[in-house]
Amino acid sequence: MSRLTRFSVSLESDLLARFERLGRARGWTNRSEALRQVMREALVQEEWERDAEVVGTLTLVYDHHRRELHDRLTRTQHDHHAAVLATTHVHLDHDNCLEMIALRGRASLVKRVADELLATRGLKHGRLTLTTTGRRLG
Amino acid sequence: MSRLTRFSVSLESDLLARFERLGRARGWTNRSEALRQVMREALVQEEWERDAEVVGTLTLVYDHHRRELHDRLTRTQHDHHAAVLATTHVHLDHDNCLEMIALRGRASLVKRVADELLATRGLKHGRLTLTTTGRRLG
Amino acid sequence: MSRLTRFSVSLESDLLARFERLGRARGWTNRSEALRQVMREALVQEEWERDAEVVGTLTLVYDHHRRELHDRLTRTQHDHHAAVLATTHVHLDHDNCLEMIALRGRASLVKRVADELLATRGLKHGRLTLTTTGRRLG
Amino acid sequence: MSRLTRFSVSLESDLLARFERLGRARGWTNRSEALRQVMREALVQEEWERDAEVVGTLTLVYDHHRRELHDRLTRTQHDHHAAVLATTHVHLDHDNCLEMIALRGRASLVKRVADELLATRGLKHGRLTLTTTGRRLG
Repeated sequence: MSRLTRFSVSLESDLLARFERLGRARGWTNRSEALRQVMREALVQEEWERDAEVVGTLTLVYDHHRRELHDRLTRTQHDHHAAVLATTHVHLDHDNCLEMIALRGRASLVKRVADELLATRGLKHGRLTLTTTGRRLG
Repeated sequence: MSRLTRFSVSLESDLLARFERLGRARGWTNRSEALRQVMREALVQEEWERDAEVVGTLTLVYDHHRRELHDRLTRTQHDHHAAVLATTHVHLDHDNCLEMIALRGRASLVKRVADELLATRGLKHGRLTLTTTGRRLG
Repeated sequence: MSRLTRFSVSLESDLLARFERLGRARGWTNRSEALRQVMREALVQEEWERDAEVVGTLTLVYDHHRRELHDRLTRTQHDHHAAVLATTHVHLDHDNCLEMIALRGRASLVKRVADELLATRGLKHGRLTLTTTGRRLG
Repeated sequence: MSRLTRFSVSLESDLLARFERLGRARGWTNRSEALRQVMREALVQEEWERDAEVVGTLTLVYDHHRRELHDRLTRTQHDHHAAVLATTHVHLDHDNCLEMIALRGRASLVKRVADELLATRGLKHGRLTLTTTGRRLG
């Protein structure tokens, strides 16, 4: 946790009042917390745009009866083992599996590994979620 | 323009420094302006989620040689004339047209009119952009 | 309009049935139209990713009493007149204006012009919508 | 895996050629696989819109030194244990943790549980990813 800075700011009263109502609705505990949230969201987007070191989580859904699919996913993850932090496998029902894969590296590398996994034939659905290492978000 | 409120806030120094760098990169002129931008973005999203009165702009691309398509777009807009503020037509080349349609009303109505226009057979591309009447964003 | 190609394809029956229900709900008139829509959406995204020539529409909301804002928007558009196809101005109420600006050029140029306009101090909201020249979408 | 249906479809030659190039670039192995991918993406979106039973994965980044934060996240997950399928915790560095939480239930429930977790004071970043149980995507 980093040192706090106290500063003052002038904003339109209406804008501030509406933003505070929104913060309460979302459960943000106070004005500082609400500002932190929207500032961090903007910063995470920017880390991905300038190809900084980031974390991404890849969500995949597939039918595990397609054995070659599961094997190929595992092989691709091993090919990029330095970028794969962890993988969790959830049995959704008799046929369907969910896999959550945590990836870390420069944004362009994380996207490339994700694209390679997303191209696996037979996936039902897959999506990369962009997040952060947390280092630069005090 | 509404009255200004001055208040002070405590934030992690690192977070603040990074947010200010981002603001400079995007051309936001100072700390207050940068905070305003991210607060407003959150508020516009929330107007759409709670079905407030909003403004949307619909962007359509199509081949104007398909006469029935242009006629149907015009008819649908007339059916909802109270929600359609203005339409601009741009000739992109010999075949292709761009149409920008400004819509206003409750979020659910704007989405319904947009969906009806987007379902017009033969469109090459279409997308609804969510924005605001500006009234509640001081 | 380009020549049609007829081809056959094998898909899981359940997937096809569900996709056709979705298409009917959205008003797509038949199976070919529904496939066209989802194929085009993927292609428009790809045009932007590989920096092809594209069309973008920029939606801005602001208070026109801030005269310097309106002047700066106009000036920036003139600076990039080759990229600005058309601008429509809508009076939302006594204070608020909506501006829809059609931009054309390589994706990176359209984004840069949009970013410059979005950085104008005092805007209430702004958003760039990604669309296509239509040329490569038969 | 469901039974296959074979059918034929007519599409503009240019559109088809471009879509196949895109499919090759993304590693989709053939025309059927490429069509499956874009159809499924549209269907997953629709499951969330009509509040069907869905799967979501929640990605959180936080500083684990804030003990009350970790405790509150755990407590909230237990409060909704029927919706939480699995949680994976990754140590990103000395300070930062990544948590990937798999949620299942009607779309509105999954969103509510995610919102409650996302409102935890002190999170650095969090995002809900929308996916599917896979049941209706043959």
